[in-house]
Amino acid sequence: MFIQRLCIIGVGLIGGSLARALRQAKAVGEIVGAGRREARLRKALELGVIDRYETALPIAVADADVVLVAVPLGAMGEVFAAIADYLPAQCVLTDVGSAKASVVSEVERVFGRAPANFVPGHPIAGTEQSGVEASFAELFQHRRVILTPLLETAAGAHDLIREMWATAGAEVVDMEVRHHDEVLAATSHLPHILAYTLVDTLARLDDRAEIFRYAAGGFRDFTRIASSDPQMWHDICLANRGPLLEMIEQFSRDLAGLAEAIGRGEGDAIMAVFQRAKHARDSLYLD
Amino acid sequence: MFIQRLCIIGVGLIGGSLARALRQAKAVGEIVGAGRREARLRKALELGVIDRYETALPIAVADADVVLVAVPLGAMGEVFAAIADYLPAQCVLTDVGSAKASVVSEVERVFGRAPANFVPGHPIAGTEQSGVEASFAELFQHRRVILTPLLETAAGAHDLIREMWATAGAEVVDMEVRHHDEVLAATSHLPHILAYTLVDTLARLDDRAEIFRYAAGGFRDFTRIASSDPQMWHDICLANRGPLLEMIEQFSRDLAGLAEAIGRGEGDAIMAVFQRAKHARDSLYLD
Repeated sequence: MFIQRLCIIGVGLIGGSLARALRQAKAVGEIVGAGRREARLRKALELGVIDRYETALPIAVADADVVLVAVPLGAMGEVFAAIADYLPAQCVLTDVGSAKASVVSEVERVFGRAPANFVPGHPIAGTEQSGVEASFAELFQHRRVILTPLLETAAGAHDLIREMWATAGAEVVDMEVRHHDEVLAATSHLPHILAYTLVDTLARLDDRAEIFRYAAGGFRDFTRIASSDPQMWHDICLANRGPLLEMIEQFSRDLAGLAEAIGRGEGDAIMAVFQRAKHARDSLYLD
Repeated sequence: MFIQRLCIIGVGLIGGSLARALRQAKAVGEIVGAGRREARLRKALELGVIDRYETALPIAVADADVVLVAVPLGAMGEVFAAIADYLPAQCVLTDVGSAKASVVSEVERVFGRAPANFVPGHPIAGTEQSGVEASFAELFQHRRVILTPLLETAAGAHDLIREMWATAGAEVVDMEVRHHDEVLAATSHLPHILAYTLVDTLARLDDRAEIFRYAAGGFRDFTRIASSDPQMWHDICLANRGPLLEMIEQFSRDLAGLAEAIGRGEGDAIMAVFQRAKHARDSLYLD
């Protein structure tokens, strides 16, 4: 697998880390960075993450063999619209959006129908850090990348993107668009919503200063993801609102049920929840 | 500070770690372990955590200078009832319960009124591990221990227990009983309830095997506390149900508000929550 010219639109944590990983693997010729904020692109150039940059997207994608769109979900449509008429014929287009149905529908809106060379993707990696300064070549090692190829997707394009991520160290799996969005709503989007809400609930209490002073170790781990980029999570909530709202509803129902059991002093019901959860958690991880 | 004879009822993570810390500081003469399960006491003896053990509580507390009750909240009343008539006159009684109003009311029920030598306490330390095998002398270093002395509490008893925890490396602070319970409901009990509920909600989904396969790094940190001892948390929920239910209600209201904003596509309202939370979290911790 060798990509002669890779164009990364949005050189942040994900785009920057992929650039570093592919360069380290000598799997890429030239890496062109693109985006709106020139200061960030200059930073990426200084760090050696990209070879050059363009702020004009039509110029950035010219002669690219692969275009990776790694902008927040809310900016995807705009990016697709800006490059649609300028993508070289054989160029493979892929993205890293955390919700797939919304990206696919933006592509369909802009292109009429999904191009054969479009491969929707989502690397399940990241930290609560963001920006190219936080990028590193090992980010994707032993992490999963989910591809959600469409009926229209060409086998060759699919293979190339699969190999690209595998070269970066990831385990690549395929999934249906809708199923991806449901799984991610449950395992990533809902937990983030809960962490943000918890911290915000406590931060609005009268004695918040004291409250936070007594927040101990478990609380720190529990709320770490509430330090994630608000804009990114704002976009995810809106892009994946259907599956997310379903999960919030299910969670809220379960929480209300537990609260009822606590209020009534129903010890067995409380124990059942905690034991099931501990069993599931312990069989999932060893730590 | 030197305790000639310390009796620890319930030699688990907390009791065992205090024993190790005081012994390491040469701040204790003899440590007597007590409890219902002899196998566990034998284990504590083998590990050198205690010097001897007694399963009969009246015998265990005879001649003790300090009695530390470190059993689950649900067993506190029973323990107080078993030792009330056998505590030496000058012996200081203290506990480590994660909720204080319920412990105080158990003491009042058993003793008629709280004895002058009773000092309610709560070390804010622990891991999701439990048992004497997990105990270590450094557990309390740089951790807070909250004491909630009562009107009846004698200054000398209060001082002794404060110094005992300080010797173990903790920062000791005083707080009112009710305030303690509210602060802990917010910072510890609510997060545990959310983690348990989240894991249980996901574990009951049809595609749970796949769901957990895609649970990534943030999820692992987020749910670590759901591995805590179910019995202990069952007891905490029932013992602190008033403040806890208030916090669950407040959280649920906030979550419903956020879900409504997501459903209506109100980006500004979503951003406001995430930004407030990130700001609070980032100003709280540096990681």
